[in-house]
Amino acid sequence: MKKIKIGLIGLGTVGTGVAKIIAEKKELLTSRLGACLDMVRVADLDIVTDRGLSFQDGVLTTDAFLALDDPDIDIIVEMIGGTGFAKEIVLRAIENGKHVVTANKALLADCGKELFEKAMEKKVDIAFEASVGGCMPIIKTLRESMIGNEIKGITGILNGTCNYILSKMYRDKTSFKDALKEAMDKGFAEADPTLDISGEDSAHKLAVLTSLAYGTDVNLADIYLEGIENIHRIDIAFAEEFGYRIKLIATNKPRGNAIEARVHPAMISNDNLLANVEENLNAVTVTGDSTGDILLYGYGAGMMPTASAVVGDIVDIARNIMSGAAGRIPLIFNSGKSKNIPIMPIDDIQTHYYIRFSAIDQPGVLSKISGALGKHQISIKTVHQKSRRINNKVPVVMLTHRARESNMKTALALIKQMNIIDPDPVLIRIEGEMDDDE
Amino acid sequence: MKKIKIGLIGLGTVGTGVAKIIAEKKELLTSRLGACLDMVRVADLDIVTDRGLSFQDGVLTTDAFLALDDPDIDIIVEMIGGTGFAKEIVLRAIENGKHVVTANKALLADCGKELFEKAMEKKVDIAFEASVGGCMPIIKTLRESMIGNEIKGITGILNGTCNYILSKMYRDKTSFKDALKEAMDKGFAEADPTLDISGEDSAHKLAVLTSLAYGTDVNLADIYLEGIENIHRIDIAFAEEFGYRIKLIATNKPRGNAIEARVHPAMISNDNLLANVEENLNAVTVTGDSTGDILLYGYGAGMMPTASAVVGDIVDIARNIMSGAAGRIPLIFNSGKSKNIPIMPIDDIQTHYYIRFSAIDQPGVLSKISGALGKHQISIKTVHQKSRRINNKVPVVMLTHRARESNMKTALALIKQMNIIDPDPVLIRIEGEMDDDE
Repeated sequence: MKKIKIGLIGLGTVGTGVAKIIAEKKELLTSRLGACLDMVRVADLDIVTDRGLSFQDGVLTTDAFLALDDPDIDIIVEMIGGTGFAKEIVLRAIENGKHVVTANKALLADCGKELFEKAMEKKVDIAFEASVGGCMPIIKTLRESMIGNEIKGITGILNGTCNYILSKMYRDKTSFKDALKEAMDKGFAEADPTLDISGEDSAHKLAVLTSLAYGTDVNLADIYLEGIENIHRIDIAFAEEFGYRIKLIATNKPRGNAIEARVHPAMISNDNLLANVEENLNAVTVTGDSTGDILLYGYGAGMMPTASAVVGDIVDIARNIMSGAAGRIPLIFNSGKSKNIPIMPIDDIQTHYYIRFSAIDQPGVLSKISGALGKHQISIKTVHQKSRRINNKVPVVMLTHRARESNMKTALALIKQMNIIDPDPVLIRIEGEMDDDE
Repeated sequence: MKKIKIGLIGLGTVGTGVAKIIAEKKELLTSRLGACLDMVRVADLDIVTDRGLSFQDGVLTTDAFLALDDPDIDIIVEMIGGTGFAKEIVLRAIENGKHVVTANKALLADCGKELFEKAMEKKVDIAFEASVGGCMPIIKTLRESMIGNEIKGITGILNGTCNYILSKMYRDKTSFKDALKEAMDKGFAEADPTLDISGEDSAHKLAVLTSLAYGTDVNLADIYLEGIENIHRIDIAFAEEFGYRIKLIATNKPRGNAIEARVHPAMISNDNLLANVEENLNAVTVTGDSTGDILLYGYGAGMMPTASAVVGDIVDIARNIMSGAAGRIPLIFNSGKSKNIPIMPIDDIQTHYYIRFSAIDQPGVLSKISGALGKHQISIKTVHQKSRRINNKVPVVMLTHRARESNMKTALALIKQMNIIDPDPVLIRIEGEMDDDE
């Protein structure tokens, strides 16, 4: 029986899950693969903690280089995360002619192109299904199943922590703060949840998906980013009245010679399956010119779902090794050259908007607001002036037709100068509307 | 530039779509594959009809054997459907050492094992993503992405025609007959819709998924089958009252030493994304022991979505050819040996039930019905006796806890003998209930 030798580096949550699946499913995996996955080295700085795993003598080590430099090892599984030592690990593995499996979206978003070029040069594979959407096979769907499609757009809920918080705020009518606390108590949020809440984690994932979908190199800093920390209960309630849910979305689409790529809270119509994705689940819709919309849904994080995707990648690479087919799917299409399609500045995007003003309750205010919007080519679809006063102000809620972001900003600046509203109107983009003309 | 030579047999809807994608996306496909897909032969009995395609002289032929026996051709794309000549084509292609792409679920359900064994013997690939779920990558997800999982169950809406009809009956409150007529008028149903309506098409697809998920050979006749032709508006309305939708589902799950595999209308809770799949769309939930539920959603039929999946398969095989990796993923796992796990007889399954009786409106009737059910270990969750009389009968609707199908049948036979109900109570299974104890 052929053995595929694996060096696993990092025994955090996902790394531990990978070791568990490989150990506990030995028979199943061997029968499906026709070879045995052999973990010859497992490296972590902490080799004392009991993770419910047992290894043969000499397998467990604190020295990652024992794995990286072992000439017998075929595949390095990088499970430490981050962009520092993880990058060193991946580069060293490639340099040593080893294939790499990683779930590290930050690393790929930061220097994916460099790593991919290096791997192609060294004729090794990098597999990274687990970097986006946990167990949802989004990477494989883009690189393989939809290969005959031009991608017309991707919209996803790619962060389980944010989705848990927004679901909780909707269902239990709690504040952001209370929902975040519960997410932390239940282990759905990290001790420092900033990376999730700010949308940064989603932006990493969107960078990976954007570069794959359009064959372009993406500069992470060009992706517009807005987190969920300023989402109020009242806006969730208004959204519900209008038939929407508020979700943190990561979305891209080609627009002429540029690409839109942005992460922010958005209202999604209840008719859209994405609106019905609850708890800590993820989902992503990919629109192909031949397929129309394909949606994938599943656990985007967590030990076993993510480990499942990593094991899928390990088996994929093992099958390449067994059939001598390394590099079977080029990491960068187009003879290894990625394009440099610019990301459209947020000011140039066009979408529908929800705007909530706290307006003073006197005649003529509505006319002033709508006048300012109209002056900047923003066409109002519906206006709802609510009677419930908050601090002697009444909420005025407007839904607009498609408008340009820069026009919206200018109009809002103008309205603010009028001294008829509280300083900060709430602006939430509405995505996936049916009267979108593209 | 390397050329991958293709013989396309059958220019029906999907075959035409495949020819279109290959012709119109030549540049895109070449840049992604690093080789050129070259349709050297295209065979159909009708080469006169204008399909909006143009071929070089000599490509179009009425003689499939010019493709099958051309030693230059690498891949035969079988797009004629059915189990007669299609089988001959696939066997001849394999015999001649050619790889095969097919979307033919009937053929695979009927003699998949024979074809797979032959292909493994001849070291050629058969790709069949388009056979189930159109553009949804369900085959790849099962054979590749979820390779580290034991599959705990699959439930899908796999027939767009039935889903269109049931969606229409729900939304527009029309009868089955009217909804079917509209589906035919709009081209969502064939001139003879029997294969779809009866559930047979879904059973073919379920047979393919079941054999892949559990590595077993499935006898199509063992799959329990019930179509949507007897679904009444009133049951759709009651379902709505209880928070359910009625969908034609194809479902399987391992049960001890056997497998449940059945196709029938079922009530699905609105909380379940499957309940929200509308129009002619398809969706399927796969439960893995590591992943939990993964759901895929998309167009399960139609020219371009299905053709997209076929092109994905062609590229997959082309990549194998280019890297010398034919047979990279064994068609039958377990050293090419499929198991023979029996399909559980429908009498032995256990699920939740919705029962609607037309009962005579007199005291004691309810007690007699519930007594008969109780006697056969059927525990009632809720009873709704509706005041609206229909033909001097009142509808009595019951939802049960998990019960055994054979007990349900015996109890219903007993109740029928009591002469207190109209002859045919309506029985609809309820799937995916939360108090399922497995």
